[in-house]
Amino acid sequence: MTSTGVLRSTALHTDRYELTMLDAALRDGTAGRRCVFELFARRLPGARRFGVVAGTGRLMSLIRDFRFGEDELRYLRDEKVVDASTVSYLEDYRFGGSIIGYREGEAYFPGSPVLTVEGTFAEAVILETLALSVLNHDCAVATAAARMSIAAGDRPLAEMGSRRAGEESAVAAARAAYIAGFGATSNLEAGRRWGVPTMGTAAHSWTLLHDTEEDAFRAQIAALGPSTTLLVDTYDIRRGVELAVQVAGPELGGVRIDSGDLPTVAAEVRAQLDELGATRTRITVTSDLDEYAIAALAASPVDAYGVGTSVVTGSGSPTAGMVYKLVARQDAAGSWVGVAKASADKASRGGRKAAFRTLEHGTATSELVTVSDGFEDVATAAEHPDARALQTSFVTGGDIDAAAEGPEGVAAARSHHARVREELPVRALALSRSDPALETVFVDVA
Amino acid sequence: MTSTGVLRSTALHTDRYELTMLDAALRDGTAGRRCVFELFARRLPGARRFGVVAGTGRLMSLIRDFRFGEDELRYLRDEKVVDASTVSYLEDYRFGGSIIGYREGEAYFPGSPVLTVEGTFAEAVILETLALSVLNHDCAVATAAARMSIAAGDRPLAEMGSRRAGEESAVAAARAAYIAGFGATSNLEAGRRWGVPTMGTAAHSWTLLHDTEEDAFRAQIAALGPSTTLLVDTYDIRRGVELAVQVAGPELGGVRIDSGDLPTVAAEVRAQLDELGATRTRITVTSDLDEYAIAALAASPVDAYGVGTSVVTGSGSPTAGMVYKLVARQDAAGSWVGVAKASADKASRGGRKAAFRTLEHGTATSELVTVSDGFEDVATAAEHPDARALQTSFVTGGDIDAAAEGPEGVAAARSHHARVREELPVRALALSRSDPALETVFVDVA
Repeated sequence: MTSTGVLRSTALHTDRYELTMLDAALRDGTAGRRCVFELFARRLPGARRFGVVAGTGRLMSLIRDFRFGEDELRYLRDEKVVDASTVSYLEDYRFGGSIIGYREGEAYFPGSPVLTVEGTFAEAVILETLALSVLNHDCAVATAAARMSIAAGDRPLAEMGSRRAGEESAVAAARAAYIAGFGATSNLEAGRRWGVPTMGTAAHSWTLLHDTEEDAFRAQIAALGPSTTLLVDTYDIRRGVELAVQVAGPELGGVRIDSGDLPTVAAEVRAQLDELGATRTRITVTSDLDEYAIAALAASPVDAYGVGTSVVTGSGSPTAGMVYKLVARQDAAGSWVGVAKASADKASRGGRKAAFRTLEHGTATSELVTVSDGFEDVATAAEHPDARALQTSFVTGGDIDAAAEGPEGVAAARSHHARVREELPVRALALSRSDPALETVFVDVA
Repeated sequence: MTSTGVLRSTALHTDRYELTMLDAALRDGTAGRRCVFELFARRLPGARRFGVVAGTGRLMSLIRDFRFGEDELRYLRDEKVVDASTVSYLEDYRFGGSIIGYREGEAYFPGSPVLTVEGTFAEAVILETLALSVLNHDCAVATAAARMSIAAGDRPLAEMGSRRAGEESAVAAARAAYIAGFGATSNLEAGRRWGVPTMGTAAHSWTLLHDTEEDAFRAQIAALGPSTTLLVDTYDIRRGVELAVQVAGPELGGVRIDSGDLPTVAAEVRAQLDELGATRTRITVTSDLDEYAIAALAASPVDAYGVGTSVVTGSGSPTAGMVYKLVARQDAAGSWVGVAKASADKASRGGRKAAFRTLEHGTATSELVTVSDGFEDVATAAEHPDARALQTSFVTGGDIDAAAEGPEGVAAARSHHARVREELPVRALALSRSDPALETVFVDVA
């Protein structure tokens, strides 16, 4: 059995209307017009103070596999989604345009041009669903995870929410949380595929499998040594802690508590451990934590946190709400035109964008976005004294830069996020709902 | 390029602690103890009145691929997740036990034994994460989707939220929504893989690609005919509608509105269409709908709904919160013992369960669950006059029943859901938050 752990073709992760538009555009000759599509958020998920970009490296791998094979083409033909000439076009499809965007781990704000896709209408329009699926999910998780990581401070933080997310989203969530500051995951596939450190020792079923709690603890220590973490709340926590130290000795590595009122229970368990001489035994808590519960435990004798549901579901905001909009295109004569819809509550801002974070004494002061209708150099704002350019190149003329992909890309993103967070103003780090910590300033260039 | 659209090995969609427990159990001889694990919800997501089961057929396909190939074993060895003898065990792993559970499309309530996995501890414990990932996601979507389908009544309802969910969860969400009453999806992969009907015509980028809205409408009609649906809100809705009818003629199939205050706009557009003689042109609305917004449009002249974010994110409850608990096992002497943890706020109920829906005059009156500590026949409640047995067999001695898989399984689940909904008491169909519509009654059998 070969096992790649990745999908072979990602090409049907596409909304039908993209192929319908392609079909019509191939007929009327607009398919070849060069276009700029921009992926951005109108607002931050959950009235947070900053967003965190994640998913771009993962998206690059998926774009690599965005090819229409025989199975995909047969489905499109059989279902009459497109006509024969469109099938021919798709047979040879391979994205040949360019993609620039924010690095993974970067902070973003409303209107930040997180990803910009340039190519013909045909090649760029059909990436819409895939790009949004990946970034909307991964940014939502990373944005929530960063807040939990801020709340946890120096205490280790592990993601263990795989069971509360679709099986593939779980892997992506583990990856996104790690980029945004978590230290480990329970998810083995995330370890294999993305190099995220994995952790975990035992569940309640381990204790219940045995005739006595003592049998369970002894067997776990025999297999994993006394430095393991024992789950002590299956029956009675006080009795569980006593037994754990009795069986493992005072060198017991840790105890895990997965129920009860955590501030109270953690204090009691710490006192008991100390009384028993297990002064270096660590306490891990894992029960329904989110950023607020973590913050509330700051003064409690807790050594590590495990977070499940809340991080994989974006702590109340399971999607980042990003959109993929056509912002510039060539007209029939080949001139560039900035375009935008004017819909009542969903107007967008046309034009090609370049993005910079302005800084003063190393602290970010604004998100500066320069806008141009056409080919003009939108990077002129780099003249700003002390502005950091936010966009990097991911795909050039169809060539995907492998640096963003795989475990190396994830490690680089995690480091980048740590640096970016240092740069944010203090007000960005508060947990309460508020306006974005930086204002996005749009500047038209001539 | 071969393209299967499915993962080759699903075996690492597993939390590390499951393999750690396996490792320890193989050492202390408990790995071979026969166990019953139960997957159930302590409460319904979002204080809803009933839950809808989805994902089980999908899970069966994933369990088929739950095999440890060379890549998986190498990772586990290199990372020292398990020792050499556990690697040998996993090399030959194939689930050889039995699985029974609720049919897809079935309603469930707190404590309903949605899935019961029986086998050795070793073979059953390692399915925990995968089973929960699939069912927690798919049930959350199906439960929300059923409410939207109730709110929509006879009007067609399409799922178009792929862009707001991880790319694989999007496919699963389209499948779950279809089972729970949606009529179509925008997601082509869900069409190919699960036989869900697909739909969609054009986005705002289609209009913006063209020099004028008229060019865009003409090109779409040339490709798709006048029965197509034109998106009329890119610039000005009134002008868009006028142009649409002018270009397509009064036989225009439909217009789509994706912004604005929908009750007001729908009424205005209907009046305008009628004035223009396009009395049979349908109005589709697609802007940020959820079950409440759909219900609020019941009296508006809307012909069809498209729902995105809210359905794929479970309308506020993105996970069903189900757990996978050991409820019975053999002891050292081979006798069965019901087991349960006693943790403060998360106690569970030990014992093997059988489940029935009691009915009076065709209307459901309770969820009856019989409980036994051991091998006793828990199905005696079938003696209840007019009780419907809720569990069916999915896997017998390792053989997966193919009937639940693929497009046929999805079609059967959709029909089953429609029948189940007919049977629910009227109070189950209200949208407001409440207690579950049926009480779950546990009965111990001797």
